[in-house]
Amino acid sequence: MNNYEKMWQELGLDVNLHNEVLNYINKGFQNTVGKQKNRPRTMDYFDNVLHESHGGRVAELLEEKSKGKKIVGFFCIYVPEEIIMALDMIPIALCGGTNFSVPYAEKMFPRDICPLVKSTLGLAFSKTCLYAPIKSLAVGETTCDAKKKVWDILSQKVNFHIMELPQKKNIIDTHLWEDEVHTLVENLEKLAGKKLNPFILKEKIDIMNNKRKVLQRLAKLRIKEPPPISGLDALVVMQAALNDEPVRFTKKVEELCDELEDRVKKGISPFYDKAKRIMVSGCPSVMGNWKVHSLIESSGGAVVVDETCTGVRYFKDLVDTKANDIDGLLGAIADRYLKINCSCFTPNNDRLEMVRTLAREGNIKGVVQYILQYCHTYNIEAIRIDGTLKQDNIPSLKIVTDYSEEDTAQLRTRVEAFLETLQ
Amino acid sequence: MNNYEKMWQELGLDVNLHNEVLNYINKGFQNTVGKQKNRPRTMDYFDNVLHESHGGRVAELLEEKSKGKKIVGFFCIYVPEEIIMALDMIPIALCGGTNFSVPYAEKMFPRDICPLVKSTLGLAFSKTCLYAPIKSLAVGETTCDAKKKVWDILSQKVNFHIMELPQKKNIIDTHLWEDEVHTLVENLEKLAGKKLNPFILKEKIDIMNNKRKVLQRLAKLRIKEPPPISGLDALVVMQAALNDEPVRFTKKVEELCDELEDRVKKGISPFYDKAKRIMVSGCPSVMGNWKVHSLIESSGGAVVVDETCTGVRYFKDLVDTKANDIDGLLGAIADRYLKINCSCFTPNNDRLEMVRTLAREGNIKGVVQYILQYCHTYNIEAIRIDGTLKQDNIPSLKIVTDYSEEDTAQLRTRVEAFLETLQ
Repeated sequence: MNNYEKMWQELGLDVNLHNEVLNYINKGFQNTVGKQKNRPRTMDYFDNVLHESHGGRVAELLEEKSKGKKIVGFFCIYVPEEIIMALDMIPIALCGGTNFSVPYAEKMFPRDICPLVKSTLGLAFSKTCLYAPIKSLAVGETTCDAKKKVWDILSQKVNFHIMELPQKKNIIDTHLWEDEVHTLVENLEKLAGKKLNPFILKEKIDIMNNKRKVLQRLAKLRIKEPPPISGLDALVVMQAALNDEPVRFTKKVEELCDELEDRVKKGISPFYDKAKRIMVSGCPSVMGNWKVHSLIESSGGAVVVDETCTGVRYFKDLVDTKANDIDGLLGAIADRYLKINCSCFTPNNDRLEMVRTLAREGNIKGVVQYILQYCHTYNIEAIRIDGTLKQDNIPSLKIVTDYSEEDTAQLRTRVEAFLETLQ
Repeated sequence: MNNYEKMWQELGLDVNLHNEVLNYINKGFQNTVGKQKNRPRTMDYFDNVLHESHGGRVAELLEEKSKGKKIVGFFCIYVPEEIIMALDMIPIALCGGTNFSVPYAEKMFPRDICPLVKSTLGLAFSKTCLYAPIKSLAVGETTCDAKKKVWDILSQKVNFHIMELPQKKNIIDTHLWEDEVHTLVENLEKLAGKKLNPFILKEKIDIMNNKRKVLQRLAKLRIKEPPPISGLDALVVMQAALNDEPVRFTKKVEELCDELEDRVKKGISPFYDKAKRIMVSGCPSVMGNWKVHSLIESSGGAVVVDETCTGVRYFKDLVDTKANDIDGLLGAIADRYLKINCSCFTPNNDRLEMVRTLAREGNIKGVVQYILQYCHTYNIEAIRIDGTLKQDNIPSLKIVTDYSEEDTAQLRTRVEAFLETLQ
């Protein structure tokens, strides 16, 4: 990695501290993803995306930047990436999944907000986030109290756009959300110094739809019996999805799927026969965070579905491309993104239905509800998810945790006990 | 109180447990409000409103109910009381301020959500809430993650209406909020079995506006030097405001204000000369909760302003009554209620300005930011409130606490130290 130190220095990073972060994250990777056996050969590429996210990918982005492309950071999968791309800018996810940076956020922000928010802020505050200095704009949203209010404070200091996501899905809410998409476009157009062109927008929608389709293909392969890929590896792919260039990424996932199809034919699986088929449902596991998947799969479970933002929520819906004008296409984009079933909605029956359907399709034996600490919406909605699953006699285990390792032994005991009870 | 036991029994209460709750709350009242010296004579009425909230007031409501009036419970001051009243129904605040009931909520809901929500739910779950059995409908809103998701679960079991409060205050947001007000009206009309009449609505708006005006009068008297009334007593008045019949209440606050004017003339105050003038800003202190005001005022402070929902937010704005038709009046109501500066908005500059104005008008020496534990929005917004106040050289102390007494000694030390630093 040391080849990149000059670049890091030029970006104003605290290079020593940044090396510590990288070591910390790499150690986490080795202890979880790296310990797996019988991984698909084509996973090498995705491992490398993660490893190069602070190196090669940043160099690539700086190269694009030098050609005039701007970088737009986002935190949440409600931000329409195709719009950013259509204005010749590059969307990059900014979320942090490492415990290392959490204390740096806690100096300013309350401790009792979710680790994802704290990790992200901590990377920026400690000068160990590479994307903070290279982005021209950050786009946040109002999906939860903590993020909403943190964006409010950050927007005093850096160029920030906050999208208001409604809290219901009635007609007036779809209007509000469409309006928000249009306001985002106006702001992005100013930044880009150009107007959205419907042909280019359609082209970028196609790129994103293709990316979604291949991830759907992967999701279908994951639920084969036995599963040809671990949940941990599927998670690595999803984490890469939020960082990598989408056309290249799509091609590489196709290759992975080809290999997985071959493994299915040959009955090759990373799991023992008796591995219990698990769905993880709830909060995302972004880069740096492999904690819960690793716990489950090293305890005798096989995570075959992720009903999370680093799972099906990211790719389950395509954008309709019937329309030929900007308004029509933006309407289709707004429509597609509002279908994402975050726990921020009330009522949220779509999410309950989705969980039930995924559990049936995946022949799921048990669900681990993964709740990041202090995430009120997923934590409380867990009650209804549990109730919905019970109707199909599927037990669920709620894990509320942060990014630290302090509770790992206790969680392992709980996960093992849960897996034992499953049929 | 035992005269009421028959009524409690008939309402399905756990009478023994309810007696324990009452003893617990009364003890809290005696140890805080009751310990004050030199109180206004007319405070007797408001003390009695609190004491009778589980007795006489319920008997009164049952009497009204027997005449066909329905009771509508609400949790948040965004719910337009005049609309409920205009449909010949009675709005009653349902929020709980006692630690006693918290464990009963924690059996079902996560522990790390705010004490106000847990106390409220706990009263209902433990069969010690009198308003749960007598209400025909509860109206909740989406001001915070915890409440939003809890309502979602409660609405599976009881008649519940959830109002979506927007998260910004742009034009599209005012449309959404107006739409929500109209949807509430439709639902309430169904429940009442009658249509809103503009004349009656105007009459009820006047009643609420008069209530607001007299509370504004009280607020102006509180900031006199020396203050003729304690912050704790002003809080008792506000807690009574959320339970009492509004016309009677208004008359009694007028009487209190008359007495306070007399005290101002005579220089009578419950405080020593050197009591530091404090504003409490942040979360509400509902009935049963006198903790922070008591701490401040027994440590040498005088709370002369409350920038809370049990403070100025409840009465600072009147509803415009120019319009003569339903749509016009509902528009004015929507407009008035959206002016309430909850921390749920982004950006929230109106609240920052409000805090600054109140601090100047009240000659405030220091601000105690009162944050209920796990209330992310007020907790994070505290950073901006602190920054705004610093511009006027007004220090602020952030207190994050629940309803328990466990941290009282530690908080007292912090409050005393804060008061000592004030000029």
